Amino acid sequence: MSENNKRYDRVLRYGSNSDRLQFFSDAVFAIAMTLLVIEITVPTVENGPKTTQAMLDGELWVALGHLVPQFFAYAISFTVIGINWAGHHRKFALTRKFDGNVVSLNLLLLFFIAFVPFPTSLLSEYGGSMPAVIFYAGTVSAISLLQFALWAYAYRGGYLDEKVDQGMYRYVRRNLLTVPLIFLLSIPVGFLFGGAWALYFWILNWPLSIIVGRYDPGSKASKASKASKASKAA
Amino acid sequence: MSENNKRYDRVLRYGSNSDRLQFFSDAVFAIAMTLLVIEITVPTVENGPKTTQAMLDGELWVALGHLVPQFFAYAISFTVIGINWAGHHRKFALTRKFDGNVVSLNLLLLFFIAFVPFPTSLLSEYGGSMPAVIFYAGTVSAISLLQFALWAYAYRGGYLDEKVDQGMYRYVRRNLLTVPLIFLLSIPVGFLFGGAWALYFWILNWPLSIIVGRYDPGSKASKASKASKASKAA
Amino acid sequence: MSENNKRYDRVLRYGSNSDRLQFFSDAVFAIAMTLLVIEITVPTVENGPKTTQAMLDGELWVALGHLVPQFFAYAISFTVIGINWAGHHRKFALTRKFDGNVVSLNLLLLFFIAFVPFPTSLLSEYGGSMPAVIFYAGTVSAISLLQFALWAYAYRGGYLDEKVDQGMYRYVRRNLLTVPLIFLLSIPVGFLFGGAWALYFWILNWPLSIIVGRYDPGSKASKASKASKASKAA
Amino acid sequence: MSENNKRYDRVLRYGSNSDRLQFFSDAVFAIAMTLLVIEITVPTVENGPKTTQAMLDGELWVALGHLVPQFFAYAISFTVIGINWAGHHRKFALTRKFDGNVVSLNLLLLFFIAFVPFPTSLLSEYGGSMPAVIFYAGTVSAISLLQFALWAYAYRGGYLDEKVDQGMYRYVRRNLLTVPLIFLLSIPVGFLFGGAWALYFWILNWPLSIIVGRYDPGSKASKASKASKASKAA
Repeated sequence: MSENNKRYDRVLRYGSNSDRLQFFSDAVFAIAMTLLVIEITVPTVENGPKTTQAMLDGELWVALGHLVPQFFAYAISFTVIGINWAGHHRKFALTRKFDGNVVSLNLLLLFFIAFVPFPTSLLSEYGGSMPAVIFYAGTVSAISLLQFALWAYAYRGGYLDEKVDQGMYRYVRRNLLTVPLIFLLSIPVGFLFGGAWALYFWILNWPLSIIVGRYDPGSKASKASKASKASKAA
Repeated sequence: MSENNKRYDRVLRYGSNSDRLQFFSDAVFAIAMTLLVIEITVPTVENGPKTTQAMLDGELWVALGHLVPQFFAYAISFTVIGINWAGHHRKFALTRKFDGNVVSLNLLLLFFIAFVPFPTSLLSEYGGSMPAVIFYAGTVSAISLLQFALWAYAYRGGYLDEKVDQGMYRYVRRNLLTVPLIFLLSIPVGFLFGGAWALYFWILNWPLSIIVGRYDPGSKASKASKASKASKAA
Repeated sequence: MSENNKRYDRVLRYGSNSDRLQFFSDAVFAIAMTLLVIEITVPTVENGPKTTQAMLDGELWVALGHLVPQFFAYAISFTVIGINWAGHHRKFALTRKFDGNVVSLNLLLLFFIAFVPFPTSLLSEYGGSMPAVIFYAGTVSAISLLQFALWAYAYRGGYLDEKVDQGMYRYVRRNLLTVPLIFLLSIPVGFLFGGAWALYFWILNWPLSIIVGRYDPGSKASKASKASKASKAA
Repeated sequence: MSENNKRYDRVLRYGSNSDRLQFFSDAVFAIAMTLLVIEITVPTVENGPKTTQAMLDGELWVALGHLVPQFFAYAISFTVIGINWAGHHRKFALTRKFDGNVVSLNLLLLFFIAFVPFPTSLLSEYGGSMPAVIFYAGTVSAISLLQFALWAYAYRGGYLDEKVDQGMYRYVRRNLLTVPLIFLLSIPVGFLFGGAWALYFWILNWPLSIIVGRYDPGSKASKASKASKASKAA
């Protein structure tokens, strides 16, 4: 590329005000979240001439009971997108500059965010089935890995606020990498023990995130615990 | 959690500029509102070889007449979401700071806002049925209680503008708590007298909101009315 | 309402920064516009064992030809919402303050904007039918009348920028009132001559908007034309 | 149009803060992107009394395999809208003023952006068919040509930042015009060699964008290459 074109690209691709990048991302997060509920269809209950209101109510409760997996899938995916929105929000609040690669990584992240309604429907329809597990775990892992890529890229490029030191960078990185760890591990777990076990395995995200939140390689306590582990291992 | 991690969390979770939080919420409110109309399907009227335009028009009017409960449900839910958006807007206009809990409470609020199209469809399909009443009343109550939780949390955390004194805090709180009061009470009303009565009961929101708007525990008139009530009760 | 409650309401309902009001409205406009295309379903063409690619292409062209009324309805409604967005944008760019009534009027406007996909589907399905004409003309008229109400309310309340003098206020008002004039008149036209004539009548919006754009009651030319009209009438 | 009306129009139609124009456009881009996935329906696999989990999984994999063209179309269209969003973002970041024509051109651009889900469905359903090729290539070309029109109009009107010199203007213009060149050329290619070849032809966008990115009419290398071409041609 010639000198001129490089200069033009610098003007076009670099920016310090990522407001529009953030609002655009917000819109995609918000729409993906809100479209999830559209997939839950209201049950049809037949209302014959002899049906009393009590019978209709009873049938409707049964029909709504069959929707429990769908409500559950809606709640999980809403939580997944919501947590990722909050994480995106926090990271960009600490980002001072961006370039064309940040825009591309962000678009790739939004690609998987917008895709979430599909594996969610698959999961609510075929809960214990391996294709559903793989699509869902794969999508959630891709989202977390892209959040990690954005964070790592911004840190290495010096795009983050000066408040973010190496310790803080690593703290966020640890938090980001637990999710794909659990979700990707759940795939072999599903193959070995059955798809339903993969779903139970996802619950491990919760205790792991607490452990990772407490772990601090710089503190004395953590060093001691490391040392004791090392001596035990030896 | 170690000192370092606590410090990182402070940087990550606290903020003074809630613009993005508000715009993201706006998007969810706006999408949930606009998706409501998608649920109303255009009626199909058969257009045989002998059908005149006048016959077609007549049948179409009849078919549109059958949609009245759907238009009604659309109007109610649009109003519910609209009023909640306006309330959210006003509260955040007076909020100066936020933390991770505000983000979480807000996501929980958006969860129920995004859910509104489902109970709305249920209501337009099975108007006088108890499951429809419970789902609708439950969703609206959850929304109001979460708006209340956001307001109370922000007030106690000292996150509100200094213009908001205790009197104003309580004024808003009273207004927020009338809605779940009516909607939650409508559930036993429905069980006792039939689901249709629960729907009529909701209309009480209107006079109650006027009464609550006028009530002022600090003014002489209110004190006098309190005193007279107390003497009557005694 | 007591003095205290009035004071609280002033703090809650008045504002000078209508950013969020505008962005929220933008989201509703944008979603309603984008949902229009969802109503156009891709035609199904049967692909038997003896079907050649040329035959399939031929059938697909025919099937797409049948969608022309839907493309047309999509284009009209996109234009209606687009023009209204541009008008909303211009009016709020000149608005310096707002109150609770502006929020309410704006929500009512958004109610009809969000409703547009329904009469659009009705129109694309039952083009020359009176129910379709009435629903469509009614919705578009309601939108224009609410834009007019917002503009008049803001002008009378002194909420507009000082650049807006009486002449400019009236100029915008004239432009706003041509649309409901044509659309409401099209309803009796439809009853008298058939629904299809109502659709043709809508085209008059175009020349009328040019005439109204040129008309200036303050200029000499307009005064002269008025005078000549008056003398003719006399 | 009278002097007064012209003056009013200037106040109404010109602006220096295009924030709302950009956020509104963002919303349309975001919704069109996110709606794409809604078109991909979860396959239905029959679950009889003798179906084992392994059989169900096998059938589900086959059914998901049939969705590959849909995933592919989703990915292409997401990329098309994403690249156009990034381009829109960059151009408006360099735009300092706008007028009514910018608003109109932008609305026309959004018209085609919002339309993308339709040709995408057509393409995923009838991949090698000429109507699908023409609709898709036509929509993408219209989008690029409107982006070009916006850029040219803003440059000629002097609405761009002073950083944008003629070289940079032309650099962006060259990049914008490669896309419609390839897509419009693919239509005769499809007629001559079959619709599938048109799809392969679209891949040429990739090498062409690299060549155009390197080409610099102002640099010595380019001049030399031009000269050598000229001498060869002679």
